Amino acid sequence: MCQLLGMNSLQPAQLSFSLAGFLRRGGETDEHADGWGLALYEEQHCKLLIDAQPSASSPLAQWAQEHVRHSRNVIAHIRKATQGEVSPSNCHPFVRRLWGREWSFAHNGNLDTAGLPVTEFFHPVGQTDSERAFCLLLDALVRQFGEHEPDAVTLHQCLAQISQRIAACGTFNFVLSDGVHLFAHRSTDLHYVVRAHPFGRALLLDCPLGIDFSRINNPQDRMVIIATKPLTDEAWLPLPQGEVVVFRGGARREPGKLAA
Amino acid sequence: MCQLLGMNSLQPAQLSFSLAGFLRRGGETDEHADGWGLALYEEQHCKLLIDAQPSASSPLAQWAQEHVRHSRNVIAHIRKATQGEVSPSNCHPFVRRLWGREWSFAHNGNLDTAGLPVTEFFHPVGQTDSERAFCLLLDALVRQFGEHEPDAVTLHQCLAQISQRIAACGTFNFVLSDGVHLFAHRSTDLHYVVRAHPFGRALLLDCPLGIDFSRINNPQDRMVIIATKPLTDEAWLPLPQGEVVVFRGGARREPGKLAA
Repeated sequence: MCQLLGMNSLQPAQLSFSLAGFLRRGGETDEHADGWGLALYEEQHCKLLIDAQPSASSPLAQWAQEHVRHSRNVIAHIRKATQGEVSPSNCHPFVRRLWGREWSFAHNGNLDTAGLPVTEFFHPVGQTDSERAFCLLLDALVRQFGEHEPDAVTLHQCLAQISQRIAACGTFNFVLSDGVHLFAHRSTDLHYVVRAHPFGRALLLDCPLGIDFSRINNPQDRMVIIATKPLTDEAWLPLPQGEVVVFRGGARREPGKLAA
Repeated sequence: MCQLLGMNSLQPAQLSFSLAGFLRRGGETDEHADGWGLALYEEQHCKLLIDAQPSASSPLAQWAQEHVRHSRNVIAHIRKATQGEVSPSNCHPFVRRLWGREWSFAHNGNLDTAGLPVTEFFHPVGQTDSERAFCLLLDALVRQFGEHEPDAVTLHQCLAQISQRIAACGTFNFVLSDGVHLFAHRSTDLHYVVRAHPFGRALLLDCPLGIDFSRINNPQDRMVIIATKPLTDEAWLPLPQGEVVVFRGGARREPGKLAA
């Protein structure tokens, strides 16, 4: 169907290594060859790349691998089309603006769209269940908080509630970022790994590429990588099922302590 | 405010030269430094790049210059923000899917949004008058033709009618492509140049770069470049005011002869 990748880092980080493995799954080591998309946050702003070419062979994907060095948050998606043609308006990540920030979202799984409510404030442009789910997440935030951004604990509670309702309509693995936090929800398949001091070594599973993280990071650096399936031989953990998990500053946060 | 660029070519073409001059206007030779966007058609598909960095210094813009070699249609936009922050959801080109094809659109000028009708089938994601105008163009097509794509002459008539109505609400310079045709409408500022056999030489106005088109083109190649302001020392012509002009196969077409 498709695969997801997310990164949340304390400092602007090099995702090149993980991305190199991930993008190979788009037509080389796996069958997700029907396009890919990437949202790269650079401080306030967000670059968006949408490309119908297989990520394993796309020159733009090659560029992306070499240039994702200055982002604290990244969301990426590779697609295996099951219905509908590849089209920028159907491609993840989807991006919307709320509370002065860019929100980006990518989804893996099928949702029974008949079971999804109609959107009120944010409307899908394409035909995917994914974009509709994203609009429903943001709709819920606007309905509850209007123009006033809530504190992170309250925000998380709202996201958890609406995610639970949407997940009842099918499979809802997603990564979502507002440029500061990275939120993730697992229905079936979603894993994460934290990279922090003392940094170790890793080998990619999709190509013969290894790295010694201690040589490219400072001791105070830390980051988390989320992927549908583990990308390296590190100790990846499945995300807890049916929960919205929050990452900030490169670490998993207990929702109740988000305000700290 | 912003500037537009469009290309329509008989064969997949190198826009690198024109793009090199155009992108310098994003922060180097001109003040349009609040981001840029590019829709690159590659046969059926369309790559979309949206970037908040100034195009004159963006690494992604550099990549784009070097890789626009396989497109028959390109639409690009550089922005000088007058209202609202730079945001992917407010960035041109906007892309929507209709009749199995990607339609991309970029606009220059201000429209009085109070004078614009409400959209019915295609809805804006961001807050710009431009995206709303684009949705209104596509709305008009769906309202008149439904799911059945009309012949090119009838399509042009419909676009001309709705463009005239929208242009009555302000300044409406735009470039629009469906991946085959390039449509353009000038209210104030929009120029074009045709490059065909016998190919000549050209110097960019924004940087000391020249080219001999006869050395990189075959005699049967031909293309048209549209830009807000001329990019080279060639014989650029202003587009006729208040008309929707059509280009296909790298040449301007008389609307009445489009079916030929």
